[in-house]
Amino acid sequence: MKILFDLQGGDHAPEALLEGARRAKEELGITPVFAGSESQRELLTSEEAPDYLVTGSVIENTEEPAMAIRRKKDSSIVLGMKALKEGAVDGMISAGSTGALLAGGIFILGRIHKQVRPCLPVIIPHGRGSTILLDAGANMDTTPEMLLDFAKMAHSYAKVVLDKDPEELKVGLLNVGAEEGKGDRRSQETYQLLKESSLPFHGNVEARDIFLGECDILVTDGFPGNILLKTVEGTAGFLYHLLERSLKESGLSVEEMQKFALVMKRALSPLDASNQGGVMLLGLKKPVIKAHGSSNGKAIFSAAEEMVRIIEGNVIPSMEDEQL
Amino acid sequence: MKILFDLQGGDHAPEALLEGARRAKEELGITPVFAGSESQRELLTSEEAPDYLVTGSVIENTEEPAMAIRRKKDSSIVLGMKALKEGAVDGMISAGSTGALLAGGIFILGRIHKQVRPCLPVIIPHGRGSTILLDAGANMDTTPEMLLDFAKMAHSYAKVVLDKDPEELKVGLLNVGAEEGKGDRRSQETYQLLKESSLPFHGNVEARDIFLGECDILVTDGFPGNILLKTVEGTAGFLYHLLERSLKESGLSVEEMQKFALVMKRALSPLDASNQGGVMLLGLKKPVIKAHGSSNGKAIFSAAEEMVRIIEGNVIPSMEDEQL
Repeated sequence: MKILFDLQGGDHAPEALLEGARRAKEELGITPVFAGSESQRELLTSEEAPDYLVTGSVIENTEEPAMAIRRKKDSSIVLGMKALKEGAVDGMISAGSTGALLAGGIFILGRIHKQVRPCLPVIIPHGRGSTILLDAGANMDTTPEMLLDFAKMAHSYAKVVLDKDPEELKVGLLNVGAEEGKGDRRSQETYQLLKESSLPFHGNVEARDIFLGECDILVTDGFPGNILLKTVEGTAGFLYHLLERSLKESGLSVEEMQKFALVMKRALSPLDASNQGGVMLLGLKKPVIKAHGSSNGKAIFSAAEEMVRIIEGNVIPSMEDEQL
Repeated sequence: MKILFDLQGGDHAPEALLEGARRAKEELGITPVFAGSESQRELLTSEEAPDYLVTGSVIENTEEPAMAIRRKKDSSIVLGMKALKEGAVDGMISAGSTGALLAGGIFILGRIHKQVRPCLPVIIPHGRGSTILLDAGANMDTTPEMLLDFAKMAHSYAKVVLDKDPEELKVGLLNVGAEEGKGDRRSQETYQLLKESSLPFHGNVEARDIFLGECDILVTDGFPGNILLKTVEGTAGFLYHLLERSLKESGLSVEEMQKFALVMKRALSPLDASNQGGVMLLGLKKPVIKAHGSSNGKAIFSAAEEMVRIIEGNVIPSMEDEQL
């Protein structure tokens, strides 16, 4: 199995990508292929060098995605996706621009079905495992039919990526109340579609219950999905700031402060992004994993592990079948 | 100034209401009037008793609001609002059902202007004061015009209720990105309306920045508004749970744990709901404050303080003018 690693995206590129890829070769038996600049090629061993894709430009996170994909034909994202489309590699892992990966995926790889909108899941860790939330912000003004498609794709993905008996997976609909009939028109109509579908529908789930693990897949439009995700980030950051300030003002000894800092660090470890590999972009014809921008070597290795499960678990063929 | 206190709503009713009202009489010089059951009347002093409104039924939080208002004509919410409408009292404070207060407000008190949708703000405390977020979940499927109305009403309210120079108030639009053009169609259109309005528009604000105090008023539809609010609650609860668990597993001494528990308690005190009185329901012809269900006497007193500022600051006449 050949997996392409994009050396040009992420805060810790290229080192984190190289480290994760090499560990994946060692432990998972995959063959890493790299895309990067002429100078980055020198970081490779002679064994890694032959398939190297030499890039001539870099797509920045701030660029308008569709425009960047059209203009920067020699970027790692475009070259990598072309190799993926042609079958030179079986999957691609990048910590680069989410927007460019989605736009490139749509233009170069194509969609599994013409009515499907590719979307972006995120994995939210909680007390009882993880929940896949989607869409995290790639699609606005979605219809109930699109949300049903998101749920179906996430269901195929969750079977392979969540450590859970696939028979026990539950799909929830993000809403402002738990009862049927709650929410805006889109939510009410999506509720009916999910209820009538063959998916294991659990009903509405309120945002305050996201960490209770009530459902494994939580479906919503990209607007509220993005609001939810960024509210988690903002709230966690604010509470951390409050705790740090309170600790500084506490008058505790240095030793006591260190102990408490350790308690805080351990407490928050389930939220550490490096424990998560990344997320698959759903709806594309070939497997692409978007790793977090802050990914270290361990996170890239986790992403490679996930890629192996996705390919061996036939996630994309299963999604194609679910759309019929 | 006569303020009506609803003895039948809230987790700590009637004690918290009585305590807050009596303190408000003492310190603010208001005249409290109470609505409650025949048996609650016995809790009053002879001086407090004359204007007492005797209720015969109670509206529960679980009831369908409009139905409850129509059927329970002798509930504290209906009797209180009638007294408010007739001018027997100048304002009303209740920790009862938000939905019933809004429905009662619309049916009994009426709206400041026929096109205005009454809405529910919440006050989010942060490092640099507080931000008023609205709508918190009362209105779904709003139009850009409705959101502009929300912003105008919140502006009149914020001038009086936030501890800030009214000239420095800023209005933000909750969105998935900071740049103009981001978001769904409603957000894009609302952005233009706010930009063209005479309001001090600050632009889009991302959910991750809610605690940075970038804006004083944050406008959004009730669906994402409610998702944001409940995500803050859910995230804070989850982090607290993680910290508590980590502390228990830390092997620290009892004395150390007590010290750290105090650091945590102090850290989180800015989020304590009892520091906030409550929020005014915006768009009604008379002032109604919805206090948090968990309000204690201190919170009810804060609500009374807010009511005095709302009445003396002519918030409702100012809102009526802004709608012209």
